[in-house]
Amino acid sequence: MKPGSKVDLGKIDPGEQTLFQKGGKEESYAAFDKLQDELQHLQKMLYAQNKHRVLVVIQAMDTGGKDGCVKHVFSRIDPQGIHVRAFKKPNEEELAHDFLWRVHAKVPQNGQLVIFNRSHYEDIIAVKVKKIYEDKVWKRRFRHVVDFERMLAEEGTTIVKIFLHISKEEQKERLESRLVNPDKHWKFNPDDLKDRALWSEFMETYEDVLAKTSTDYAPWFVVPADRKWYRNLIVARIMVDTLKKLDMRFPEIDWNPSEIVVND
Amino acid sequence: MKPGSKVDLGKIDPGEQTLFQKGGKEESYAAFDKLQDELQHLQKMLYAQNKHRVLVVIQAMDTGGKDGCVKHVFSRIDPQGIHVRAFKKPNEEELAHDFLWRVHAKVPQNGQLVIFNRSHYEDIIAVKVKKIYEDKVWKRRFRHVVDFERMLAEEGTTIVKIFLHISKEEQKERLESRLVNPDKHWKFNPDDLKDRALWSEFMETYEDVLAKTSTDYAPWFVVPADRKWYRNLIVARIMVDTLKKLDMRFPEIDWNPSEIVVND
Repeated sequence: MKPGSKVDLGKIDPGEQTLFQKGGKEESYAAFDKLQDELQHLQKMLYAQNKHRVLVVIQAMDTGGKDGCVKHVFSRIDPQGIHVRAFKKPNEEELAHDFLWRVHAKVPQNGQLVIFNRSHYEDIIAVKVKKIYEDKVWKRRFRHVVDFERMLAEEGTTIVKIFLHISKEEQKERLESRLVNPDKHWKFNPDDLKDRALWSEFMETYEDVLAKTSTDYAPWFVVPADRKWYRNLIVARIMVDTLKKLDMRFPEIDWNPSEIVVND
Repeated sequence: MKPGSKVDLGKIDPGEQTLFQKGGKEESYAAFDKLQDELQHLQKMLYAQNKHRVLVVIQAMDTGGKDGCVKHVFSRIDPQGIHVRAFKKPNEEELAHDFLWRVHAKVPQNGQLVIFNRSHYEDIIAVKVKKIYEDKVWKRRFRHVVDFERMLAEEGTTIVKIFLHISKEEQKERLESRLVNPDKHWKFNPDDLKDRALWSEFMETYEDVLAKTSTDYAPWFVVPADRKWYRNLIVARIMVDTLKKLDMRFPEIDWNPSEIVVND
């Protein structure tokens, strides 16, 4: 999303599968495989160089594919180099602080790739749609997140924000598949239906968030996500493009390898 | 290591490759592949059930294979379900607390699998061998770690401790390979040679640690680690055996799936 642009999610097809990609699902596998290899290599350099910090924020409606996206796109990365932070409903201690306190504590340090599975954006979106606090609270939070992310970026963090865009029909199918499969029952929360009933309010709020918080230093990407393979492909591409833009190289050493002797 | 047993690392061959395993390297791949699948499934249940906590402590000499072991054994696990915590030389804030403070903050919560890449054991081993504090400090720390781990276990954490056992000859080869490969230079630290010069003191201290801190609730495993494929196989086996002993199942639900209707 271009900073400052108006966003109409109704005009972005969640079932999209051809943009940035020739051919369909089968043809995409080779491309995805190559992107995963590139991502693995780029992360290795990120870790070795120990200089850049990368933060990926993932937001979506329930069943939008946050977990699946993390699992598939980042599966080839060394577990040591990736840190996934899931933010659930805030607990008592978290609520006793400003809303950025718990996320700030989890931002990446040098050399780290951190993924936020949900994030401080819930503190605008859920708060607004479910009317948790009075309007002035979420209204000023737009400013808070923009300022916070600018500070992170200026201090050396690369930020990418991803909205996995699914259709209401696709959510229905995914929720129903959780109901028929006993191994997936634990993933179903009857409360999710309450959020589903507020679908259009959520979309409206996401449009507002995408428009007001997409910045040059922390851009939002709207990823069509009804087709999982396409979603994975696009997210992998975003990650590779983002990491390639960093000036990454293996660190230089300040000693001469040929002068070192390893004794028996 | 059986709790209370005397440990003689000289009698455990780091080059071992046949124990618990028929055939050699090639034959092991199928077994390893199967163990990885099992591990993936077990972690999924651990996460879904959200009840047990699992802590894996990995210790080794430099080049012992801590990073490689994490990368290969746990590569098929959902990145969201595994948390690797690397403990380096303590910083100022960490040193301003008791030695267990920083590790306690990183122990697993329900449903989590956490791996300590180095750990509170450095605060005994390095402290003793490098004479960082007076003897009484590391001496009483044996008691501290045993008490700490018992508390964790009694409160619901499953603890597995792994010592990757390499030979001094193998370390030489690995250090030299880091010197000849420019992409690996960043992994080489000339200071590692100082530790290498203290090899026998380290082995002696490890023997002491393994003997005194292997308990029923937090056992130590000495893994022959000169051969990477064998090391991976054995660690995967330890993990699968440990997780299988937990009473894990997908969580039960308190609502009736057939009564739920997902509206359009």
